[in-house]
Amino acid sequence: MRNVDLRLDPKWIVPIEPTGCLSGHALIVDAGCIVALVPTAVADSAYAARSRLELPGHVLMPGLVNAHTHAAMTLFRGVADDLPLQTWLEREIWPREARFVSPEFVYDGVRLATAEMLKGGTTCFNDMYFYPDATARACLETGIRAMLGLIVLDFPTPYAADPDAYLQQGLAMRDAHKHAPTLSFSLAPHAPYTVGDATWEKIVMYARQLDLPISTHVSETAIEVAQSLERHGLTPIARLHRLGATGPGFIGIHGVHLAPADVDLLATHGGHLVHCPVSNMKLGSGIAPVPALLARGINVALGTDGAASNNRQDGWSEMRIAALLAKVGSGDPSVVPAQQALHMATLGGARALGLDGSIGSLVPGKQADVVAVDVTAIRTLPCYDPLSHLVHVAGRECVTDVWIGGERVVAGRRLATADEGAIAARARIWQERLK
Amino acid sequence: MRNVDLRLDPKWIVPIEPTGCLSGHALIVDAGCIVALVPTAVADSAYAARSRLELPGHVLMPGLVNAHTHAAMTLFRGVADDLPLQTWLEREIWPREARFVSPEFVYDGVRLATAEMLKGGTTCFNDMYFYPDATARACLETGIRAMLGLIVLDFPTPYAADPDAYLQQGLAMRDAHKHAPTLSFSLAPHAPYTVGDATWEKIVMYARQLDLPISTHVSETAIEVAQSLERHGLTPIARLHRLGATGPGFIGIHGVHLAPADVDLLATHGGHLVHCPVSNMKLGSGIAPVPALLARGINVALGTDGAASNNRQDGWSEMRIAALLAKVGSGDPSVVPAQQALHMATLGGARALGLDGSIGSLVPGKQADVVAVDVTAIRTLPCYDPLSHLVHVAGRECVTDVWIGGERVVAGRRLATADEGAIAARARIWQERLK
Repeated sequence: MRNVDLRLDPKWIVPIEPTGCLSGHALIVDAGCIVALVPTAVADSAYAARSRLELPGHVLMPGLVNAHTHAAMTLFRGVADDLPLQTWLEREIWPREARFVSPEFVYDGVRLATAEMLKGGTTCFNDMYFYPDATARACLETGIRAMLGLIVLDFPTPYAADPDAYLQQGLAMRDAHKHAPTLSFSLAPHAPYTVGDATWEKIVMYARQLDLPISTHVSETAIEVAQSLERHGLTPIARLHRLGATGPGFIGIHGVHLAPADVDLLATHGGHLVHCPVSNMKLGSGIAPVPALLARGINVALGTDGAASNNRQDGWSEMRIAALLAKVGSGDPSVVPAQQALHMATLGGARALGLDGSIGSLVPGKQADVVAVDVTAIRTLPCYDPLSHLVHVAGRECVTDVWIGGERVVAGRRLATADEGAIAARARIWQERLK
Repeated sequence: MRNVDLRLDPKWIVPIEPTGCLSGHALIVDAGCIVALVPTAVADSAYAARSRLELPGHVLMPGLVNAHTHAAMTLFRGVADDLPLQTWLEREIWPREARFVSPEFVYDGVRLATAEMLKGGTTCFNDMYFYPDATARACLETGIRAMLGLIVLDFPTPYAADPDAYLQQGLAMRDAHKHAPTLSFSLAPHAPYTVGDATWEKIVMYARQLDLPISTHVSETAIEVAQSLERHGLTPIARLHRLGATGPGFIGIHGVHLAPADVDLLATHGGHLVHCPVSNMKLGSGIAPVPALLARGINVALGTDGAASNNRQDGWSEMRIAALLAKVGSGDPSVVPAQQALHMATLGGARALGLDGSIGSLVPGKQADVVAVDVTAIRTLPCYDPLSHLVHVAGRECVTDVWIGGERVVAGRRLATADEGAIAARARIWQERLK
């Protein structure tokens, strides 16, 4: 008998790797890692767990990975709807950011976002925003796993005066937190249209020296692509390729308007695409060619984008709508079946962030980032196929318990790592200020 | 002081008519009807309520109207995903229906569906299915308001052998229940492609004689329209118009592939369109031209369709996705703003069913079909605009209390009119049978 920290006995386990669904199995966790997924009888004879939880109406699955957001913007949730991207940015978002965004705003906003994400089963996110040091502090407190983007823009903001200042602040943040086991880092130039060639070249240099991925918005709108063709004679992706930014560490966000040659380029050089279906729909940006990307073997992850253009930090909604949108966008109802949607929401996200060696599936040796989903409610009955239900029927409201690296961060639908009342009180204060 | 049955004191009221959001108001209910929406001080001085409920973190709004479903099919929830409409119908659904559907199946399925709908804030639905007498019995027990379709097909099923038998059974059901205040009726020929001209002519005759609306699937897929043009030389809508079926009592369901002349026809003759965005996405059918219909003044309602093609009976999901899909489908993020989406989900549905004189908005004199939505959770903070939150942030999990005709059918998230455990137990029995 091996002594271990935790044994979970759910009705079903959806490990993502391998595909499909196990029943009659237990999940064994020790020292923060998954030790085994074994039949109950094997668990009985081989493991003595210090803690054990029966989950007779639950599916266990890996935590969802939100591969693109601006977590602090949760304080702007629903502040301006029904506008196209450029108007929305230039008239509604950028002026509010210039006036209100501070380390305090970011800290409070990220605490709110991570409370929402954790309670909804998202255990890891890829962030791009100002004051990432405040984001890091909030994440360390709530226990969520995060990849922090070292944001870079060519224009000044209260956070930084010029590209070098953005980079210096980002690198200092990384130095301060680089030993935190739940944090990782990317270079995060905002977009091809807000960052010029000279800055891109510096970013590519840092990415190579420090072995960091590059995470950027790209080809989000038709206008962006048209302007890139006009100014540079190249699509945004082709321009980034010429600048040396593409490759296996390239995390392209949105990719709504990709030319066939852009898809070839991503397929050939190993870039990842973060699909943000709700944001793309809400801003009227278009439908990303997800079935074509998947058919070419390109890794596709899912992101919520910020709460100002969504208006949720809800990986379940993103997963279901990604499946539905791919079907209607292609006219082919067979694309993005449930297993594929679940893969994009978990292991696809982990791969995009370069973390698939440690998270994204319930495989022995990986970190125990695990979500328990209650499928006993009236709205989830009957259940012929748990995979189908996870995508099309379940939602974040079905998540009852969440572990990250074996630590229980949500217990019985309550956040275990931070005071929800205090987080809500700060959100209400910002609501009054921003009104 | 007037003695009344009930006073509700929410944070906000979204009455739909007029548009916008009230705060500091109370809703007064007596004898099943809305008596007044008045400032709190006026309520204090004018009404003595036998029962009073403080809802300090809630929005009150009219119950959602699900303007198209096949409620009993909730027992087929998720039984076959990822297939196009005709394959899905012919290979997966129709054989299962032939084998399993009976009055017992329909009764149990409708109890399950109405439990899901009521707990999610849907207070009225428009149904089309076999054995509508069993549907009627289930609805009377759970207290939900329903329009029961007198289904007609040209081919035999275990329910009826020929069109006359379908009609006779439907008319007998109507005779048995026509005095029930929560039930109403429509003639429900399945679709133009499953019902021939001779049967349509009979249906149109009955609709005129009995003053019943006609509810039918129409122009759901491109193939349906192409076959209609080939066989009849007319689009499905033009053919139904020639047969006399269009007009203010016409409830067209889906309308994904409408020609400009079809839209003209609906606009001119006053037909209603029930938009089922999730079903249309999941089956890859296409995107209905909702902004164009609304621009022409055509009344648009929302429907979930059956749980075999959705896989939810969730009006909130339908409302949010309708807004998102219209934006991405038209490329215009300004279409279907929150107020419009809320209208489609409530009053638009009531109008389609010919019930807008009695439900669909919180207007004095109408039935008290009211839903309380809790907007205090972390995921709903901050809140700058309650209308935006109802569409883009809230979901059925936020619904705490529901009244129909003044009767509290959901109290503190629990179904008050039926035993949820018994409903779930029956769903599990069918799950085993259908496996």
